[in-house]
Amino acid sequence: MNATRAASSGKEPRTERGRRTLRALLDAAAEEFGDKGFHEGSISGITRRAGVALGTFYTYFDSKDAIFRALVRDMSGQVRDTVAPALRSAGDQIAAERAGLLEFVRFVRAHKEIYRIIDEAEFVDPESFRAHYANTADRIKARLQAASERGELRSGMSEVHAWAIMGMNVFLGLRFGVWDDSEDAERIADQVAQLLACGIGVEGSQGS
Amino acid sequence: MNATRAASSGKEPRTERGRRTLRALLDAAAEEFGDKGFHEGSISGITRRAGVALGTFYTYFDSKDAIFRALVRDMSGQVRDTVAPALRSAGDQIAAERAGLLEFVRFVRAHKEIYRIIDEAEFVDPESFRAHYANTADRIKARLQAASERGELRSGMSEVHAWAIMGMNVFLGLRFGVWDDSEDAERIADQVAQLLACGIGVEGSQGS
Repeated sequence: MNATRAASSGKEPRTERGRRTLRALLDAAAEEFGDKGFHEGSISGITRRAGVALGTFYTYFDSKDAIFRALVRDMSGQVRDTVAPALRSAGDQIAAERAGLLEFVRFVRAHKEIYRIIDEAEFVDPESFRAHYANTADRIKARLQAASERGELRSGMSEVHAWAIMGMNVFLGLRFGVWDDSEDAERIADQVAQLLACGIGVEGSQGS
Repeated sequence: MNATRAASSGKEPRTERGRRTLRALLDAAAEEFGDKGFHEGSISGITRRAGVALGTFYTYFDSKDAIFRALVRDMSGQVRDTVAPALRSAGDQIAAERAGLLEFVRFVRAHKEIYRIIDEAEFVDPESFRAHYANTADRIKARLQAASERGELRSGMSEVHAWAIMGMNVFLGLRFGVWDDSEDAERIADQVAQLLACGIGVEGSQGS
């Protein structure tokens, strides 16, 4: 993901080398805050992990708060950009949701720190926390409604469906990505695809 | 909920009056930590809200950490006990899940601080955080599998279904309970019941 806009205002990198340094700082911040949390994490810990001088940090960011905010936005964007190709290449919307969950679980397994960072944002940077989930839900709702118009999902897709699907994915990522990654991710995705395709009820269940 | 076991070891109340004081301390702690968070919240803030002397706190709890831990367990139990009657009285398991979500959203609207407290437990008291979700998922899985054996849900109900349903409910509670409580809770529950009963797919969707 292009990290240029992650820098503090007026500190955007203008060269390819600058963009690489900014990327390295964000990746180091993910490790530092993922390991230690926001309060125990430090700017010197970030620059040490990134292998750059302390002063280099201030070339791009104003403060620890600033890089944490940038990191939450960056991780939110990384999830979006990782999942997007899988969503686009699937045969229909149920297959797309299955592929999106599969990519998400794989991403979480490779970036387990994402939960701690986004969850801590609720306390450190509530605005970014809220924006992450509101934006994600908006994207899900838009794709469900588009699929409904194409006849791939039934009508009536709403914000409720978007938040339900986001909640499923986030919790499955926590359980089967962060806590324990030994379960076959394809099997998890299969079960969720079947739930989305036809529910868990039997004939005559009280759906309204 | 019976709060007797919330007290620190050896400090369990033996009288009805003691149990009422302990309950008042837990309710005051929910307000204090819900308003201020764990780090800013204080024992004196809790006793002030509960209308008891500071020394009374130590009759029941050893420390701020101890009452926070007790509060997370208590809120987890309150959710369980609030939702249980709705689950039991429904006609079939889809109706039960619908009723459970409805009660949960209503509970959250009346106790918005529960999200901040349980989410902060991830950092302050990771063991209680994990126990809350692991125990909740275990209960959901058990009731889904029992319903499957009764023929009310299809076969193959697993931990994946339990975590999917828990995730839906938690995120719907955040969006429609904590962030904005103006949406008709019955309408939310209807949409989720339909999703569980028969999915969001149309004939020929790729469920596996």
